[in-house]
Amino acid sequence: MNIAEYMLQIGKNARDAATILGRSNTQVKNAALAAIADELEAHQPELLAANAQDLAQGKANGLESAMLDRLTLNEKGIAGMIEGLRQVIALPDPIGCISDLHYRPAGFQVGKMRVPLGVVGIIYEARPNVTIDAASLCLKSGNATILRGGSEAIQSNQAIAKCIAAGLEKAGLPATAVQVIETTDRAAVGELIRMSKYVDVIIPRGGKSLIERISQEARVPVIKHLDGICHVYIDDKADLNKALQVAYNAKTQRYGTCNTMETLLVAKGIAAQILPILAEKYHATGVELRGCAETLKILPNITAANAADWDTEYLAPILSIKIVENIDEAIAHIRTHSSQHTESIITEDWDRGMRFLQEVDSSSVMVNASTRLADGFEYGLGAEIGISTDKFHARGPVGLEGLTSQKFIVLGNGHIRQ
Amino acid sequence: MNIAEYMLQIGKNARDAATILGRSNTQVKNAALAAIADELEAHQPELLAANAQDLAQGKANGLESAMLDRLTLNEKGIAGMIEGLRQVIALPDPIGCISDLHYRPAGFQVGKMRVPLGVVGIIYEARPNVTIDAASLCLKSGNATILRGGSEAIQSNQAIAKCIAAGLEKAGLPATAVQVIETTDRAAVGELIRMSKYVDVIIPRGGKSLIERISQEARVPVIKHLDGICHVYIDDKADLNKALQVAYNAKTQRYGTCNTMETLLVAKGIAAQILPILAEKYHATGVELRGCAETLKILPNITAANAADWDTEYLAPILSIKIVENIDEAIAHIRTHSSQHTESIITEDWDRGMRFLQEVDSSSVMVNASTRLADGFEYGLGAEIGISTDKFHARGPVGLEGLTSQKFIVLGNGHIRQ
Repeated sequence: MNIAEYMLQIGKNARDAATILGRSNTQVKNAALAAIADELEAHQPELLAANAQDLAQGKANGLESAMLDRLTLNEKGIAGMIEGLRQVIALPDPIGCISDLHYRPAGFQVGKMRVPLGVVGIIYEARPNVTIDAASLCLKSGNATILRGGSEAIQSNQAIAKCIAAGLEKAGLPATAVQVIETTDRAAVGELIRMSKYVDVIIPRGGKSLIERISQEARVPVIKHLDGICHVYIDDKADLNKALQVAYNAKTQRYGTCNTMETLLVAKGIAAQILPILAEKYHATGVELRGCAETLKILPNITAANAADWDTEYLAPILSIKIVENIDEAIAHIRTHSSQHTESIITEDWDRGMRFLQEVDSSSVMVNASTRLADGFEYGLGAEIGISTDKFHARGPVGLEGLTSQKFIVLGNGHIRQ
Repeated sequence: MNIAEYMLQIGKNARDAATILGRSNTQVKNAALAAIADELEAHQPELLAANAQDLAQGKANGLESAMLDRLTLNEKGIAGMIEGLRQVIALPDPIGCISDLHYRPAGFQVGKMRVPLGVVGIIYEARPNVTIDAASLCLKSGNATILRGGSEAIQSNQAIAKCIAAGLEKAGLPATAVQVIETTDRAAVGELIRMSKYVDVIIPRGGKSLIERISQEARVPVIKHLDGICHVYIDDKADLNKALQVAYNAKTQRYGTCNTMETLLVAKGIAAQILPILAEKYHATGVELRGCAETLKILPNITAANAADWDTEYLAPILSIKIVENIDEAIAHIRTHSSQHTESIITEDWDRGMRFLQEVDSSSVMVNASTRLADGFEYGLGAEIGISTDKFHARGPVGLEGLTSQKFIVLGNGHIRQ
């Protein structure tokens, strides 16, 4: 197989399909989503068999158990994909929405119409359910999709791809509206992220090294986040109960997620009061604490944090703690060490809450709330294709709207420029 | 001078200044804009003297007269820059605006706050007034700016830079909020467009080859348009008067602008009726016509268009004309040859007007209006830093809002994730 030629064809197919999808109405897109759900239901045995092949191959290749877990597709997983499709059907269709339509003094109207981005490339790792999640959001938002899953999941993804293609065709849409790359050759990724003529945006989902490499090499815009080094700052005017609740939840509700707190900043004035109670809660849950020199004076039994700790996304039951003089030092620390994902202040002081909201430059900034709430579902976007820590285009949790653009429309009656 | 070190320092200065600008309120930013206007007024003699130096150098270097025109800064030009600053002062400040703030079922509030992008790099050619235009829009939107003008305008730009720096300092803002690169070494541009740590977006303004090179080499997002190959399609259900008015205006109101019509598409059913009248109007104004074979049957005295004409942005009194069967062929032609800048349909047919709006994938799509209206001022944005033909981030005329981003804010009361 000539990878460059193969990918060029994929790109051309996607561009052609995007034109058709872009003018398909909500009813047609929803019919396709429903037909895909039916196909998944009808072909459950084939999906399970394909996944069993991947799992057998994975075990033979010595994949670690966490990876095999992510790769596993069981009946519950298939039901979850079907449920996900139903949820996307229920979401409002952003395409075609006209906003800000108003008359200009000269008598013509100007407004904006929401349109698809065009072709979305998704690069992800082992989880086969991403194939359905990503395809359904792109389809609903009128975009053609090119999917490149991890090579470990190749059989599962091909089986899912067959269901998607059949569903699309039943609804009268081209099967090429969602294409799953059939080769595991890495050169295909290299082509995909450079086809700026045929691909409008790349969304990588997976580990940091994958995302870093793709952003470095891409010639197409990328929606991404690399790190989630999230901070909670407990101000000395914090309500003690809220502080305990939020600081505990932000670290322990789940360890491996990007919106989990990795560093706790505590104002000097409240540290001696709150840290012993918090430490006990963390200790009971098995969280390892690493503290700055001041923290060690209050919690003498914990490990000393080193310089690298402040820049580390643990994704594990480890928390670094730093005592700061005040909100200024907290914001300065965040400016230096944050990955601009999510930060939260715990305070009852109005002015400090407002300052934190204004001055902290992260994709989500919170007052008296857990960083774990930074999520498309929690925010009510209905779905999430990823979280962006960039400022360009979409920022924070990215739902359907992040997969769209707006064009200007002008409605005249023979209007000309004077 | 070590260019890499010099640019690194410029980048660091800009990032630091962006932090201060980002939290400066409207009053402070407007005071700086007013102080810059005062400085320009007070230092008019120095500005004219610096410009005279550039002009003398330009003449000695044999610059062509159009270039010398663009380079010239006279009293009227300075008055125009001052007027521009006053207009930017009058614009509403987008920064800090909170939208969509609403309660989630769990009881916390989620919304979006508009924030600056951070650091904006502007790369432009000879016109010295761009220095003030660009700096004022970036300043108002809370962004630090790095400006790199054409080497022909180096003395003028340095003189303007002094006024800007003095004005910023009078308002208590860092002079580094707007930095004009002092070297004409091209390596400085190479550094600027790769400093993704210090620069958030690049806006190139100038000829196609400059913009093409910058987009190719940049490692920072670029807001750009390469071409303006704009189309007007006269449908057979067009009102004859509106069609004549719009088609004439779209071509002749100004020739050298990106929103000027370059190709006129005419439905077969109306061609014999309208083309002779139109040809006479164009002829009287000195517009050269190039037609497809069908057009030549109606206008036998014009030149035959060749394949390249359909893909050419003339920026000159030349127009290519093609007769098409119907709206389908018009849209297909636009899909193949348009630069996705601006297209307009002239029709009295409701369904065709709606189809054109929905199916044409350009940054501005119009019904019964001249493509020349695609402009930030005509649209009421109050200002324009450029026009984007990309779909990512900003599309169409880019005003203050295109220089901003939105972050999510969450207002809780001790809320945690369940």
